[in-house]
Amino acid sequence: MAAPPYTQLEQEFRRLHAIRGALAVLRWDAAVMMPRGSADVRGEQLAALETEYHILLTAPKISRLIDRAQANAAGLEDWQLANLREMRRQRDHAIATPQALVSRLAKAAATAEAKWLDARQQNNFALFAPHLEEVVLLTRDKAALLGQALNLQPYDALVDEFSPGIATQDIDSLFKAFARKLPGLINQAIELQAARPILPLAGKFAAHKQKQLALEVMKAIGFPFERGRLDESEHPFTEGVPGDIRITTRFIPTDPFSALLGVLHESGHAMYDLGLPRGWLDQPVGRDRGMALEESQSLLLEMIIGRSRPFVRYLKPLLEKHLGVSGPEWSEDNLYRHLNRVQRGLIRVDADELTYPLHIMLRYDLEKKILGTELAIRDIPEAWNTFMEQRLGVRPQNDVEGCLQDIHWAVGSFGYFPSYALGAIIAAQLWESLHAAGATVDEDMAAGRFGGIFEWLRENVHGFGAKISVQELLERATGKALTAAASLRYLEAKYLETT
Amino acid sequence: MAAPPYTQLEQEFRRLHAIRGALAVLRWDAAVMMPRGSADVRGEQLAALETEYHILLTAPKISRLIDRAQANAAGLEDWQLANLREMRRQRDHAIATPQALVSRLAKAAATAEAKWLDARQQNNFALFAPHLEEVVLLTRDKAALLGQALNLQPYDALVDEFSPGIATQDIDSLFKAFARKLPGLINQAIELQAARPILPLAGKFAAHKQKQLALEVMKAIGFPFERGRLDESEHPFTEGVPGDIRITTRFIPTDPFSALLGVLHESGHAMYDLGLPRGWLDQPVGRDRGMALEESQSLLLEMIIGRSRPFVRYLKPLLEKHLGVSGPEWSEDNLYRHLNRVQRGLIRVDADELTYPLHIMLRYDLEKKILGTELAIRDIPEAWNTFMEQRLGVRPQNDVEGCLQDIHWAVGSFGYFPSYALGAIIAAQLWESLHAAGATVDEDMAAGRFGGIFEWLRENVHGFGAKISVQELLERATGKALTAAASLRYLEAKYLETT
Repeated sequence: MAAPPYTQLEQEFRRLHAIRGALAVLRWDAAVMMPRGSADVRGEQLAALETEYHILLTAPKISRLIDRAQANAAGLEDWQLANLREMRRQRDHAIATPQALVSRLAKAAATAEAKWLDARQQNNFALFAPHLEEVVLLTRDKAALLGQALNLQPYDALVDEFSPGIATQDIDSLFKAFARKLPGLINQAIELQAARPILPLAGKFAAHKQKQLALEVMKAIGFPFERGRLDESEHPFTEGVPGDIRITTRFIPTDPFSALLGVLHESGHAMYDLGLPRGWLDQPVGRDRGMALEESQSLLLEMIIGRSRPFVRYLKPLLEKHLGVSGPEWSEDNLYRHLNRVQRGLIRVDADELTYPLHIMLRYDLEKKILGTELAIRDIPEAWNTFMEQRLGVRPQNDVEGCLQDIHWAVGSFGYFPSYALGAIIAAQLWESLHAAGATVDEDMAAGRFGGIFEWLRENVHGFGAKISVQELLERATGKALTAAASLRYLEAKYLETT
Repeated sequence: MAAPPYTQLEQEFRRLHAIRGALAVLRWDAAVMMPRGSADVRGEQLAALETEYHILLTAPKISRLIDRAQANAAGLEDWQLANLREMRRQRDHAIATPQALVSRLAKAAATAEAKWLDARQQNNFALFAPHLEEVVLLTRDKAALLGQALNLQPYDALVDEFSPGIATQDIDSLFKAFARKLPGLINQAIELQAARPILPLAGKFAAHKQKQLALEVMKAIGFPFERGRLDESEHPFTEGVPGDIRITTRFIPTDPFSALLGVLHESGHAMYDLGLPRGWLDQPVGRDRGMALEESQSLLLEMIIGRSRPFVRYLKPLLEKHLGVSGPEWSEDNLYRHLNRVQRGLIRVDADELTYPLHIMLRYDLEKKILGTELAIRDIPEAWNTFMEQRLGVRPQNDVEGCLQDIHWAVGSFGYFPSYALGAIIAAQLWESLHAAGATVDEDMAAGRFGGIFEWLRENVHGFGAKISVQELLERATGKALTAAASLRYLEAKYLETT
């Protein structure tokens, strides 16, 4: 007698999980270890496994089993039911977009990415425009098909891929609250800051010293090195599956905080993945609950914890020990100011937490218009620069510091940007409750003890995997729906502090 | 209209090749990079891809296409015909052993390997015996099924997996020639050696210095670092596919030649793989022609070239430069003697090229008897020790230095051992012709120029891939069939040299 349909499904998805894990190793290797000339060979390996994955996930057998398991759902426990729902979700997403469109989009994105690099080097948006146009046309098709299949508006369907269950109207209302408060807050913060000058930090710090510092911080955080690694790559990233999770960073000799904060960011992702529900790691319900929640975990560590006063207290002696620094510019106060300086900058990835949401709102605004045909590709630079000037008070002098700065659109990642800002909002809301729940959180951080923080996170966030929605998770963990309130309270308290 | 069957087959095997390449990366990573605790996750990934590979290769579609391509073979060129033959060969091997038996064997081997490690640690063969028994029983089944499918004797079918087209009778006649000559040759060599004492080499050499030395030698050989890497691992190996080939070594501070000769050995494999026919790399005919030829390429570099007088001349200044050595014990003469010392040793992997074949003949003799039920598992230690005493004049004092020294039987690799000795024989036969063809081979080696050697090898060996048999390759390259003659001439000339 064959196993019950649900049991068979678990078996099938275990196989898919293993292929997904293999893909993660191949991607990690390509970015960290692979000889330069081997990209062609690797490309074929990745394509073959991705095709295999897609074939297995969209096979009629899976759909048949899902239907049969659904019909017998009465006997399933809640984790199994949630798992079945996530199986269906993955199948729906995979099946909605025909393989031919996926391939065309992948090809167009590969070309557009190369042209984007050229355009950046030559500061020439026109070089990139026709290739972005092609990506946009195909993404529109994809969004329409996904929307039909998922019964969502096209743009919402794209967002759903990255951050399930979050809709444009949620994002709109959060961003509205930000738009109302942030500009004034930024003004006030910059004024307050001007009254407290920052001593510049100078020096060159060898990569191996910075690495020792990063490793000590990772150990304090509880990063399990028997199940993970830290390496160097051109752009920091986290790759892998729970059970083998690897983060990377890049060491800049003149800026020791770039690598360290990058390591905190990626460690946030890694700790989330490592805290996913143990019994479900090879099943859809055992995965993370999308990019907004992922970013909440990385930003919590990089932005909220890593730039807090207690953390700076913990960090100061480590900087002295590993980098051999001393002097008034390395005082707790000056370090804190350095790490929390607010600036009207042009570049998203360099932005502080107060101006960052505006960078995202710009992209969110434009990408909806681009997909909805309200904004022509050729008009992107002007729209971008105008937005920056009106909302942030700075205008890019060229497109490299304007609309050519991000890779996302080139590779077809429309609907992704909001998750960065959502992540920051969720992080602040979680932090407010976490902080209220633990009487000694600040003391612990200052002493380099992070166990309590991660215990709370595992219990209230990580351990749910994909079982419940982000909204339900927040309701349970914080007693409140997802709103911008906690985030604005956090930003006001921090940046309007007058002491 | 669908593509012709042969064209469709190429497409299918391209996919298989990509999966094979992915498996290579996963295995390399497991040995070199993977966090210690992640073996469970990796095991599932490897198993999933291996299963996928097997399913695709044994699918009815492939067999149907092979039959149809065969029926239309008239229109195919010779490379295509050879490719079709190799496709069939791979399919035949894969389909002959049912997946259930493959899984049982893999499981039994995994247990036996662990028990083999225990048995070695406790010097207790009895711990290992029942698990080896299980592996042997399953291997017998496999050999019988393979033999039926390939129309070969069971043991020949196992040898055919590793070294296609080489039969027991070929091996028997080669080993007979060795058995006649070697014992006397070993006696004479050891006598001659006694008259020329070797100054001991002392010193400790840091891994990073040894690595610089190894890298310089690899560069001279022509190892393409844009398509490959050198790393460290517990046991040296070569992994990858042409286009991304990676070798490893292990640095022993007190013995700088261990790593260097290991690097030469693995570079021999890598250079073979990198020289495979360019247009066929993702097809069966573009693969190496089995382990005997693979070993011929690694042993040619490690044993014949790497321990030759001209190579020692090239090496001496490099040792001085990278390891800072000096003194009479680092003279050309003493180094040469050190590298070519003949000893009646007990351990195969430490054996010199003169005694090495005897170690293989022992294993060949025993494994045939074990599979043929002439030798009971419990009687292996006694049979082993008796053979060593009679043929090499030394008797192991325990099984760790006797029948527990190799992993091969534990993991079911019966039929593999002959390829080591075959490799040495083929290497000597190729070298005789290569050396005769190039007037300046010795001068070139002494000057660190290896281009001519590899040009000859690419033209006469590497570039054929799996198009022709080892025997045909030797006939073309050396004008002679595979015999022990050249090997014996080489050994006599080298070890009976009286200057």
